[in-house]
Amino acid sequence: MKREYKKTALPVWEIRKFLEPGPTVLVSSRWQNKTNIMTMGWHTVMEFSPSLIGCMITSANYSYELIRKSKECVINIPTLQLIDEIIGIGNTSGAHIDKFSKFALTPEDGRIVKAPLIKECYANLECKVVDTQLLATYNFFILEVVDAQVATYPKYPKTVHYRGEGAFMVSGKQVKLPGKFKKQNL
Amino acid sequence: MKREYKKTALPVWEIRKFLEPGPTVLVSSRWQNKTNIMTMGWHTVMEFSPSLIGCMITSANYSYELIRKSKECVINIPTLQLIDEIIGIGNTSGAHIDKFSKFALTPEDGRIVKAPLIKECYANLECKVVDTQLLATYNFFILEVVDAQVATYPKYPKTVHYRGEGAFMVSGKQVKLPGKFKKQNL
Repeated sequence: MKREYKKTALPVWEIRKFLEPGPTVLVSSRWQNKTNIMTMGWHTVMEFSPSLIGCMITSANYSYELIRKSKECVINIPTLQLIDEIIGIGNTSGAHIDKFSKFALTPEDGRIVKAPLIKECYANLECKVVDTQLLATYNFFILEVVDAQVATYPKYPKTVHYRGEGAFMVSGKQVKLPGKFKKQNL
Repeated sequence: MKREYKKTALPVWEIRKFLEPGPTVLVSSRWQNKTNIMTMGWHTVMEFSPSLIGCMITSANYSYELIRKSKECVINIPTLQLIDEIIGIGNTSGAHIDKFSKFALTPEDGRIVKAPLIKECYANLECKVVDTQLLATYNFFILEVVDAQVATYPKYPKTVHYRGEGAFMVSGKQVKLPGKFKKQNL
């Protein structure tokens, strides 16, 4: 049985805590009556407030048009427990299958966007597409996180970080050294 | 004593292996007779070939003008052993100090760019700035990796991944499941 998380709202300017370490994420989308999920590894935080994320989604991907047309998506942060789903979702195309059904994942309604959240993920970040000027050249979307729901436990998720060639790094131990930082740099 | 690495060339389209997992990196730069180093966490791979990286470098940072004017920099991948340097470099400004000297790091000549490589890092990725259209709005540089030198051992570095609030995640164990991937998706 897949893990269930109790989630709570996180201020959107705090999502770097979960995205800056570089996890492989699942991006869900909806356009009209079609939904899809894709696996994504090429993303970065771009700003705290507004809470911006940049990400590369190739136009060959079925999700590309759903996100471009709806101007919305959800970045879901899965944990190691979903490794088979992460790989399977990356192996398949939404042009042929319903990924929520195929991978037994539960769609949930968002608070702001129409794209479905993935219940089994540690965190759900609802996003609006806010800038498409790099889309034609680089397939690069700039998103604003407009709502964030994050598991209350554990404090940090056991994320997976793709290295290519079928290998993932799993997030390891924590080193916390706040006393060494200048306060404005934390 | 700081670790020394024996390094070898890596094809530039393979650098995702080290950057996609999301490590905190050190960016070195040179403009005329000034060099600097900054700590950076907001970056993403954008393309295999050309080997593109997008990254956010705030214009308040002393490195910003060095990189903008020289159109070059080096992304150096440090490991946990350099955690004090990673934090210290983020705490200080190159406007006031010489960071190579202050943090006892060794500058090395690049093969292509004039910016110095950091010898004590696991990998050195020489980069040219190839697109600045997002600079004014987002402080977002698009770089092309033009040379990559990577340690021959260990196979993967023990990288640190910043979470904010003084906390780093240290890269953990590996999960390798190539048999589960479609070959074109590896």
